[in-house]
Amino acid sequence: MRIGELSRRSGIAVPTIKYYLREGLLEPGETRAPNQADYGDAHLQRLRLIRALLDVGGVSISAARDVIAALGRTDLQPHDLLGVAHHAVSPTRHPDRDTDAWRDARTAADQFVSERGWFVEPTAPARDQLADVIAALRTVNAPEVLNNLDAYATRALSLAEIEVDNVIARGEAVRMLELVVLGTVLGEALFAALRLLGHEHASMVRLAAAQELPLTAGTPRKASRPAST
Amino acid sequence: MRIGELSRRSGIAVPTIKYYLREGLLEPGETRAPNQADYGDAHLQRLRLIRALLDVGGVSISAARDVIAALGRTDLQPHDLLGVAHHAVSPTRHPDRDTDAWRDARTAADQFVSERGWFVEPTAPARDQLADVIAALRTVNAPEVLNNLDAYATRALSLAEIEVDNVIARGEAVRMLELVVLGTVLGEALFAALRLLGHEHASMVRLAAAQELPLTAGTPRKASRPAST
Repeated sequence: MRIGELSRRSGIAVPTIKYYLREGLLEPGETRAPNQADYGDAHLQRLRLIRALLDVGGVSISAARDVIAALGRTDLQPHDLLGVAHHAVSPTRHPDRDTDAWRDARTAADQFVSERGWFVEPTAPARDQLADVIAALRTVNAPEVLNNLDAYATRALSLAEIEVDNVIARGEAVRMLELVVLGTVLGEALFAALRLLGHEHASMVRLAAAQELPLTAGTPRKASRPAST
Repeated sequence: MRIGELSRRSGIAVPTIKYYLREGLLEPGETRAPNQADYGDAHLQRLRLIRALLDVGGVSISAARDVIAALGRTDLQPHDLLGVAHHAVSPTRHPDRDTDAWRDARTAADQFVSERGWFVEPTAPARDQLADVIAALRTVNAPEVLNNLDAYATRALSLAEIEVDNVIARGEAVRMLELVVLGTVLGEALFAALRLLGHEHASMVRLAAAQELPLTAGTPRKASRPAST
């Protein structure tokens, strides 16, 4: 198909598709004539992956490029691919890590990982990410979050186990890699959305209990004026 | 203290502090003389909150401004504050929501919420966020994630309940508001880091099991060359 048809079928504007081509996110089409390229279903599928990563996963253009390059490599083991997928979801900003306070937090993060008996490379960037959060939590007034570290970790691990098992169940290397990437990026967005919905629900339930109000399933009570905007 | 001292004690450069003042994130200091302002411990504490939101929570400047403005309001109920905190952690990008495919995903999201008996406002933005993820998952090849929606939801809700209970336990309105904001933003970053660590661990355990290798607690086997970069 021509680029106009690719645009129509994907719902993505032609200039945006050209931008992805320039950025190396999308493979060039097959050249039929000068200034005329032909695209196939693989391009359409790739465009959907790009949009899922960028718009829903919140991944940067450069991280998306790394992920897509990794998907094309046949020499990577699924465990190696974890590194690429993790890099894609890692925050681009982080606090100053060259302070005593941060190094203390990193020690606490390592201790937490080791106390739980988790097998994690000493150089895994997620250790730094955990240290970032611990360091921040120590400077603000939210001891409750740090006191509940175990509750977070238990749920995070049990979800991670399901996700890793799903990857392994695919069997074929290329298809495993695909799920590592999609599962890591979209799984995070999915959990985040469900946690916010859970907050609303739990808050409504506790509010109704405190005021001894009946709750009608499915529709929140207008009278309590919860603001959700 | 003068701005230089505030910079030294917070570890934040003077131009950055001036930027936060211009952006309305930080209250002006008390004016002692022309071009000379005096800052107190409240400013130091506020700077720590700003950095936690921006650097660790990944919140935008404008969302941080909304959060900080909300913290100063005494008329908001904790449930109302959820809306502000949720807005702060909502992705700034999202897919095109004006398509039939997206509207179908939104219907599926609503149905999921209602089947679980969750009390959530029909206008809650987290419903749109869930629809974004469902729509993306339907266009890419990752049915395993959609098939595990319940596993995600169960863990998300049980975490949300703990977080809401911690907020309520604070009792005093202003302190409840503070934890809604910090818990929502930093709790998301905390869970994300622990989930990635959980992936590494689960992947190592499954890998060792598949290869019938012994695992030594605390240190991953170098021989299996897991890439964590």
